[in-house]
Amino acid sequence: MTTRLRHLISLRDVSGAVMTRFLDRAEQLRDACAHGTRSLDLLRGRTVLNLFFEPSTRTRTSFELACHRLGAIVVNFDINNASTNKGESLLDTLHTLEAMHLDALIVRHRKTGTPEFMVRHAASGVSVINAGDGNHAHPTQGLLDALTIRQHRAEFEPLTVTICGDVQHSRVARSDIHALTGLGVQQIRLCGPGSLLPSAEEFPKLILSEDFDAAIEGADVVIMLRLQKERMAATLLPNEQAYFKHFGLDRARLARAAPGALVLHPGPINRGIEIAPDVADGPQSRILEQVANSVFIRMAVLTELLAR
Amino acid sequence: MTTRLRHLISLRDVSGAVMTRFLDRAEQLRDACAHGTRSLDLLRGRTVLNLFFEPSTRTRTSFELACHRLGAIVVNFDINNASTNKGESLLDTLHTLEAMHLDALIVRHRKTGTPEFMVRHAASGVSVINAGDGNHAHPTQGLLDALTIRQHRAEFEPLTVTICGDVQHSRVARSDIHALTGLGVQQIRLCGPGSLLPSAEEFPKLILSEDFDAAIEGADVVIMLRLQKERMAATLLPNEQAYFKHFGLDRARLARAAPGALVLHPGPINRGIEIAPDVADGPQSRILEQVANSVFIRMAVLTELLAR
Amino acid sequence: MTTRLRHLISLRDVSGAVMTRFLDRAEQLRDACAHGTRSLDLLRGRTVLNLFFEPSTRTRTSFELACHRLGAIVVNFDINNASTNKGESLLDTLHTLEAMHLDALIVRHRKTGTPEFMVRHAASGVSVINAGDGNHAHPTQGLLDALTIRQHRAEFEPLTVTICGDVQHSRVARSDIHALTGLGVQQIRLCGPGSLLPSAEEFPKLILSEDFDAAIEGADVVIMLRLQKERMAATLLPNEQAYFKHFGLDRARLARAAPGALVLHPGPINRGIEIAPDVADGPQSRILEQVANSVFIRMAVLTELLAR
Repeated sequence: MTTRLRHLISLRDVSGAVMTRFLDRAEQLRDACAHGTRSLDLLRGRTVLNLFFEPSTRTRTSFELACHRLGAIVVNFDINNASTNKGESLLDTLHTLEAMHLDALIVRHRKTGTPEFMVRHAASGVSVINAGDGNHAHPTQGLLDALTIRQHRAEFEPLTVTICGDVQHSRVARSDIHALTGLGVQQIRLCGPGSLLPSAEEFPKLILSEDFDAAIEGADVVIMLRLQKERMAATLLPNEQAYFKHFGLDRARLARAAPGALVLHPGPINRGIEIAPDVADGPQSRILEQVANSVFIRMAVLTELLAR
Repeated sequence: MTTRLRHLISLRDVSGAVMTRFLDRAEQLRDACAHGTRSLDLLRGRTVLNLFFEPSTRTRTSFELACHRLGAIVVNFDINNASTNKGESLLDTLHTLEAMHLDALIVRHRKTGTPEFMVRHAASGVSVINAGDGNHAHPTQGLLDALTIRQHRAEFEPLTVTICGDVQHSRVARSDIHALTGLGVQQIRLCGPGSLLPSAEEFPKLILSEDFDAAIEGADVVIMLRLQKERMAATLLPNEQAYFKHFGLDRARLARAAPGALVLHPGPINRGIEIAPDVADGPQSRILEQVANSVFIRMAVLTELLAR
Repeated sequence: MTTRLRHLISLRDVSGAVMTRFLDRAEQLRDACAHGTRSLDLLRGRTVLNLFFEPSTRTRTSFELACHRLGAIVVNFDINNASTNKGESLLDTLHTLEAMHLDALIVRHRKTGTPEFMVRHAASGVSVINAGDGNHAHPTQGLLDALTIRQHRAEFEPLTVTICGDVQHSRVARSDIHALTGLGVQQIRLCGPGSLLPSAEEFPKLILSEDFDAAIEGADVVIMLRLQKERMAATLLPNEQAYFKHFGLDRARLARAAPGALVLHPGPINRGIEIAPDVADGPQSRILEQVANSVFIRMAVLTELLAR
């Protein structure tokens, strides 16, 4: 028997059994929503606050829809206009919002550790959900990627997964690694320019490579990461064309992967930089399924954390 | 028997019968809302997304209220913070939002044809509603203007309607023309500075004039358009006073129209530029009725498009 | 028997009996919300519009939550994107919003008198709630401060209340004075740098002082005000350290007040400028209780004004 989670900050210490429960619940919620849009009332009268210190319309909208479809009250705390601009500390913002009797705070912050910091100081009744902190974690993304894979592959254990791009600065990559490792995936390969790969110490059991052709060989799942423009210089490559040549996913390279390999990307995609348009839109792309699953996974996390 | 519309992009090809159905439905919905504010549950659990690439609090708020009063979930996609700023294409934004299982997208964009482009690429379950694109169309404005007129005049056929201002760049004018023509109005006169009038080829059956005194003569309805400050130079007039003298609606000029002629304006009004304050606030002004009708027309359009 | 209020602009002319009714109702609503988060349906289908011309995420969020918990529709009118930027007058904005059939407008504006101006011009069915105008009034803050005090003190009459800081420019201070005076508080002392104190003519019955040590002596309640950075120069003090030395609340100074004196602050607090961190977080601080009460007071005001 597993105990109920109260916060979701990272998947590092979440067991495979609990993650499986999230995935199962997401699919139950999907089936319960006729056409994905019927409103359930599982969280009627509960209050959720979106606290995004970094802009992210995509993730915020996905969480907002998840709340609405569960009947919860959801309020966007527009941090650009907020007291934090008046010099209020994060802790004072946290305690102020808690005092308004929230059930959950969904937090995105560019600084690693902010959601964990909030958990340490949160009042007893509030759940904190990490919607992405620095390079650290984006746990609902990890879960939704796992769900997307599970919808196409019977078992996680035998899979080989290649993650390619700026792994070093990617909270998506870290949460994917924790999700897939926890669910039993045996082989994960990380690929990217040497300067954008994490240290071997961080992931001693994974294979690190600067050779995408080798890293994709026989892979069952290929997860491409978005290249932030500001990281281009760090790649030591002269331009985006060169990046695409070495680390972009085109059809020729995808042909090296296992037949029917799944292509994932957390979006928004840079067409022609990390992924070719015909691959992004092609038959092996699961990118839009990831988006659809994002709402169901967030509904699952909210119901799990806020259940009474 | 008319078939149900799935999208509303322009009134150009919408029949008078279908437009009449929208107007009838808007009035039924008005009557069903006690004091205009009771919430109906006709779209309970359906999801609508406001996707405004141009700022427009007025129209956005009107659509937002329409959604709430029908019990729909409505989410504002704040495009200023959005992925489109990260270089994501319009098509990728569309497909991403669709993947979240929306029922309708309400789109405003400065570029003519954007909503039509989205219709061509939209998934089968999504309705696209044009909330204004470039100079092209603003169909709910056309419908609400027609409704406002119908509430004061028994028949459309015998009416003479004068539209005055920057007709060339006005999506409101084009949608009004399509609405009123479709509903049977026999005489529409377009008036404005020559440089801001559309070509005679675009509207071969309409009367174009640079002489407002002549164009307003005997008119039953006078629709004044907002003069965008940035168009002042194009008028070839020295200043706003000169514009008002030639193309502004004051009481003396209104006296040339038919007795009790209706005065409309899509708002926000420039007092003293295109309309005199005492006319805007006078007994013949229907401007606030247009605003009230805006919510009911948008409720009507939403229920028509999203009905199951 | 008192008649029902339709607007709430200032507490100046609200009787103690009516204020007591607001406080009682706030506590009833608090008890009716299990854990403060259950949604009541007292204002189901009613429409409230947040019209904030000054940024204030904290107050706006508090009102927004109050509306949601009463089942009302609440829409944020994002004035930064609004027609007022296109030169539309306040009056035209008011009438446009009214025409959409709102039940209440919650208004914040930097200019004193804006909400009162709107009341004079509002249509008959609309309630205007002042969420802060210039230096004039912030009535829901006055009520929530009174409620916070009443939760700890049996009677208002015998209390001595000290308000310290930039009283001259503080709408919070003025509404606190009106609330507490109306509820019977016998002694209110105002303290701050001479240049930031109101004139003796404005508050002839109150004690004005530039000596915080004297003003806090024996006080039962100490209300600290936020020092706006842009007012620092007006204090004639060299820096924030000097301000804190003269007008900041630390433990030594608090020890001069009555035993167990209550410490209030409207937030957001400037730690180390007007209040020491260990006082803000200490056992006598009621700051977070004020935040909690803010939602209940606003629910009480909304139900009172919008009841049918």
